[in-house]
Amino acid sequence: MNRKQIPLSKEDLEKIAREYPTPFHLYDEKAIRENARAFYRAFSWAAGFKNYFAVKACPNPTILQILKEEGMGVDCSSQTELVLSEKVGFRSGGIMFTSNDTPDEEFVTAVRQGAVINLDDIRHIDALERSAGIPELLSFRYNPGDSRSGNVLIGLPQEAKYGVTRDQIVEAFRIAKNKGAKRFALHTMVASNELDENYFVETARMLFELAVKIKNEVGVNIETVNMGGGLGIPYRPKERAINTDALADKIHSLYEKIIIPASLAPVKVVFECGRLITGPYGYLISRVLHVTSKYKEYVGLDASMANLMRPGIYGAYHHITVSGKENEPHDCLYDVTGSLCENADKFAIDRNLPQVESGDLVVIHDTGAHGYSMGYNYNGKLRSAELLLRENGDVQLIRRAETIDDYFATMRFPGAPVGV
Amino acid sequence: MNRKQIPLSKEDLEKIAREYPTPFHLYDEKAIRENARAFYRAFSWAAGFKNYFAVKACPNPTILQILKEEGMGVDCSSQTELVLSEKVGFRSGGIMFTSNDTPDEEFVTAVRQGAVINLDDIRHIDALERSAGIPELLSFRYNPGDSRSGNVLIGLPQEAKYGVTRDQIVEAFRIAKNKGAKRFALHTMVASNELDENYFVETARMLFELAVKIKNEVGVNIETVNMGGGLGIPYRPKERAINTDALADKIHSLYEKIIIPASLAPVKVVFECGRLITGPYGYLISRVLHVTSKYKEYVGLDASMANLMRPGIYGAYHHITVSGKENEPHDCLYDVTGSLCENADKFAIDRNLPQVESGDLVVIHDTGAHGYSMGYNYNGKLRSAELLLRENGDVQLIRRAETIDDYFATMRFPGAPVGV
Repeated sequence: MNRKQIPLSKEDLEKIAREYPTPFHLYDEKAIRENARAFYRAFSWAAGFKNYFAVKACPNPTILQILKEEGMGVDCSSQTELVLSEKVGFRSGGIMFTSNDTPDEEFVTAVRQGAVINLDDIRHIDALERSAGIPELLSFRYNPGDSRSGNVLIGLPQEAKYGVTRDQIVEAFRIAKNKGAKRFALHTMVASNELDENYFVETARMLFELAVKIKNEVGVNIETVNMGGGLGIPYRPKERAINTDALADKIHSLYEKIIIPASLAPVKVVFECGRLITGPYGYLISRVLHVTSKYKEYVGLDASMANLMRPGIYGAYHHITVSGKENEPHDCLYDVTGSLCENADKFAIDRNLPQVESGDLVVIHDTGAHGYSMGYNYNGKLRSAELLLRENGDVQLIRRAETIDDYFATMRFPGAPVGV
Repeated sequence: MNRKQIPLSKEDLEKIAREYPTPFHLYDEKAIRENARAFYRAFSWAAGFKNYFAVKACPNPTILQILKEEGMGVDCSSQTELVLSEKVGFRSGGIMFTSNDTPDEEFVTAVRQGAVINLDDIRHIDALERSAGIPELLSFRYNPGDSRSGNVLIGLPQEAKYGVTRDQIVEAFRIAKNKGAKRFALHTMVASNELDENYFVETARMLFELAVKIKNEVGVNIETVNMGGGLGIPYRPKERAINTDALADKIHSLYEKIIIPASLAPVKVVFECGRLITGPYGYLISRVLHVTSKYKEYVGLDASMANLMRPGIYGAYHHITVSGKENEPHDCLYDVTGSLCENADKFAIDRNLPQVESGDLVVIHDTGAHGYSMGYNYNGKLRSAELLLRENGDVQLIRRAETIDDYFATMRFPGAPVGV
């Protein structure tokens, strides 16, 4: 009935929790690798296929290292993410820099690294030239405006702060060419957490057709078409995962219909998926502190929005199971809350669960992307550890939990008016 | 026309920005002290009046020290906030512990400190007794359910995860008395950022009447009535601040009508205000990186949701001025965005401003509460410094900006699988 599983029994989890206090994030290496390989297999027709993993989804060096071993690059959005990626060993063509409202120093770092720079705005060409010089390879983020519908999470493209508009995109490539760029890439990102693969098929069609138009009007060959990210995952048990095989086949057909006749081949097809890559293979493990009865029934966890913000700020659904009680009747109705003094700090509202007791271990599913990375210290909460379930069954610490000294770090400096 | 001001000219701000790179939070000591004194003056009729400042609003030790000098206590919601408050020098009756879904070790710390423990749930009496013992003084948080309407931000009281219900509250005091508590306090918090002072007058009436009921039914005298926080501030220029003098007078009348005839006097009246105390006297100072034209016009700042999350997650209004252009015609329509790759990262949508240029210093107002404290590191963003404008006009660093080493701190530990 409930197809969402964690590959660990209650006894396994209790054993881990004896070594690492709850709450903690746990990632499943085997599942991450298998999923990465299936994604790459689906696109094996596309020479040079690559996924640039969106670092913001899971900025953990060990996870990035695993994805590197599976052939992925990284998509960075800031100086810090560029530095992190370089430290993990990503180099030049393995780094995409898709930023927004970019400070000069980030252009400098990205150019020094040889990253693929994906400009968010036509005026950023000047900023890039001034700060770091125009690199040989330049990419632009395209925003199709009202010619695409967007989706619920990302909103209407014409309301989004990102990208180069329909009226600007051809001109952007012309300017880049005139300023000395020799190689060109085209990118878009018009959906977030979208489960309909046809949405991305239409994105491919849009970009392929635009590549042809750019070739015709500016005389430059787009060498890489970057479909962005936005591929969703089934957070709810009844949702269906994207069929990446079908997606790849349909994009392949479009490639043959549009790219080949235009003599644009070979064009590299790449993605910037984050959520699709790690989302389903991470779990937030938390212990029940209190089960209480007010005007509603509450399950109070030792985790909070500090560990997972999506339910609180987006009203996002995350599946919840109670370890060891997966097959018990789900006949109790609870709000599952975190421990913040913040009204929105609820992991689930009116959720049917088995009868929960204080001390139970609760598994919050699909926290492998935009989970830890969105955590904060509100209410003085400390961020949790990240653990990796290795392929051989070992559990390894891949990020230590924050300590109270981490919390105090920025309050302690020479000349601080109040010592703490 | 625009009555919102920062007490610093463009030249002043540029001078500060030469020493401390933008973005930074800046607090106005003089205004904070004057406001604190006015609040206390309004309640000078109430013996033992105290505001327990909600640490979560602005957990900076120098700000807490200033409020301590003005006679305030602290309201803590977690272990970390308790430790921070103790380090600043708050002791016993100066610390209120209003937590939620509380772990045992926090009860232990609070009892050790002699903090006033404000229990969120009737079942927490047992948890407190088991973990730390029942202290002499015990407080309960009351949730009136559908007998109060709540307000937009906090939602309906009967949907809130907080407090002891109408059916439980008298019993809670009875149990506490039977378990040996000798002194009692009563608390509620049913609104957030509410600007209608009459809402809090009704809260006072509700608590005073409940105190009488508890005396009659359990035979205990409530010695402190804690009105909670939730007193709003005028984020929008046309909004009116709460008249705390009028509020105090009306509560005084109710005190004489309800508390005195019931022979309950003296009852201490206390609050847990955070936003009202520091909110209007903090500013987020940011520099314009790019002004861009897409399907809309954008002002891109070097700040982001990492520095101020309220507009992005609540759609909250924060007033924005452009330093040195306060009196220019506000005839340009912009979205003011942060630099995150996150669609919600906008400080304002469709805001009329003077014509903005790259390099301008922008002042985001009313960030003195729930500003820095809600910051995160999403997209690898580093949290900003906090500065204090001293009463003598000096500017002092009261929290250093995060560095990239802070960001890496939890990735660096013995045995880390990937070195960074």
